[in-house]
Amino acid sequence: MSTETLILDGNTVAGAIKQSLETRIARLAEHGITPCLATILVGDDPSSATYVRMKGNACKRLGMQSVRIELPASTTTDQLLEEIHKLNADPLVHGILLQHPVPHHIDERAAFDAIAIEKDVDGVTTLGFAQNAFGFANYPSCTPAAILAILQHYNLPMEGKHAVVIGRSPILGKPVSLMLLNANATVTTCHSKTANLEEIVRQADIVVAAVGKPKFVQGSWIKAGAVVIDAGYNKGNIGDVDYEACLPNASAITPVPAGVGPVTIATLLKHTVDAAERQINL
Amino acid sequence: MSTETLILDGNTVAGAIKQSLETRIARLAEHGITPCLATILVGDDPSSATYVRMKGNACKRLGMQSVRIELPASTTTDQLLEEIHKLNADPLVHGILLQHPVPHHIDERAAFDAIAIEKDVDGVTTLGFAQNAFGFANYPSCTPAAILAILQHYNLPMEGKHAVVIGRSPILGKPVSLMLLNANATVTTCHSKTANLEEIVRQADIVVAAVGKPKFVQGSWIKAGAVVIDAGYNKGNIGDVDYEACLPNASAITPVPAGVGPVTIATLLKHTVDAAERQINL
Repeated sequence: MSTETLILDGNTVAGAIKQSLETRIARLAEHGITPCLATILVGDDPSSATYVRMKGNACKRLGMQSVRIELPASTTTDQLLEEIHKLNADPLVHGILLQHPVPHHIDERAAFDAIAIEKDVDGVTTLGFAQNAFGFANYPSCTPAAILAILQHYNLPMEGKHAVVIGRSPILGKPVSLMLLNANATVTTCHSKTANLEEIVRQADIVVAAVGKPKFVQGSWIKAGAVVIDAGYNKGNIGDVDYEACLPNASAITPVPAGVGPVTIATLLKHTVDAAERQINL
Repeated sequence: MSTETLILDGNTVAGAIKQSLETRIARLAEHGITPCLATILVGDDPSSATYVRMKGNACKRLGMQSVRIELPASTTTDQLLEEIHKLNADPLVHGILLQHPVPHHIDERAAFDAIAIEKDVDGVTTLGFAQNAFGFANYPSCTPAAILAILQHYNLPMEGKHAVVIGRSPILGKPVSLMLLNANATVTTCHSKTANLEEIVRQADIVVAAVGKPKFVQGSWIKAGAVVIDAGYNKGNIGDVDYEACLPNASAITPVPAGVGPVTIATLLKHTVDAAERQINL
């Protein structure tokens, strides 16, 4: 049965998204505009540094601009807000990404919400969250949007399906639950206080693992024929799903790496191009 | 078994909330302030007119002020926004309630979002929705907040329980799902596209009916011992739950009328008093 499992290749989906951006970026160039993503990294977490570098490099490969702001771990909330305000005011910057997580002493929510909604290409503001929940956000959170892009790319239906999301964070579990709901799935959101997690996951037609624990989702939890989406990224590039164990039961599954990750980055680039186009009403 | 079913009496819960407001209203009076709720009714739907009247009367009975704005069904979105802006600017108005639904030609979302966040005592703005989703709203949507107030009043635990919400509207199904999630319930949100609704409801420890269809939830759907909350209000004061049929299996149930309704109104009053106190940092 494992031979029939569809591997949901994030690089293929990301490639399709990036390809669709090429002509748009060329058209913006005719107007003298280079879409520009500003990334902010606070502190020296090596994984975060890697993610930010990957995003900057992805911009460059597409002929987009990236501005990298690196701040020491000692940065205060006020200092961070000041940097964000500067980027908000900079007409050459179209999108702003604040790499999560920031050091504990910083008010991350305040920092996210300081990002101007028209530059919130990562979909992290409070207002952007609700716009996404109501189905009219310009920039849905990138990882949730990437998950839906993968399902859509592979024509995996959501309507009427039972989706079980494991995790309830403001930038992943909650928004992906709401996006699946808006796509007409029946959605169950589980978390650390869920009493009978295995039993609930076993009912899922679509499992989204967004829990942040390596190889947390076990093969025996997966109903035969379920679609398994691994949105986890743990140290050592290990997902939240025990991939090999889940492969036999799943009808489709995302690997880690090369699953949700590259599509998240492609979505971020797409949102930045969208933002650049909106700036000149293209 | 039905004799043991706990009837969740909304009037009792509403009474407790209102009682807690009395001393606060008296203290505000010492500062020369009367909490004031402005209600806006557009068109001549008789049910909506009744709800608005009830809210105004509830204010009066507690010694609060109410301002009633009544606009014809022909009102345009722009005209409605203008009225809302006037109320936003009026320092004597502490809370604004726009009665849902407005006539179809009006952009209800734009009207809701025109309400200043500090006067959004009904919790209908996009921003307020997200603040509630993240657990830091000053004024969560009133009906969802009322549902949680009832569960809390009767010491019915939510943590680790499986809550099934039927309905996904922006002012009821979605916010109550998120509030139950924040209260550590495992939450499934169902709707018109849900494939196997009965089967899912049968798993629920807590059922919230917010679907807007009279007597929609059947007795056979209720697991023995489940808590049943009827947030429906259909013509003729009929809930979304077939009360008599659900009574035997339920461990606790809200009636209609005298269930969620009065607690919703009490919550609205509480939020208006909160807003008045915040105006003077009391």
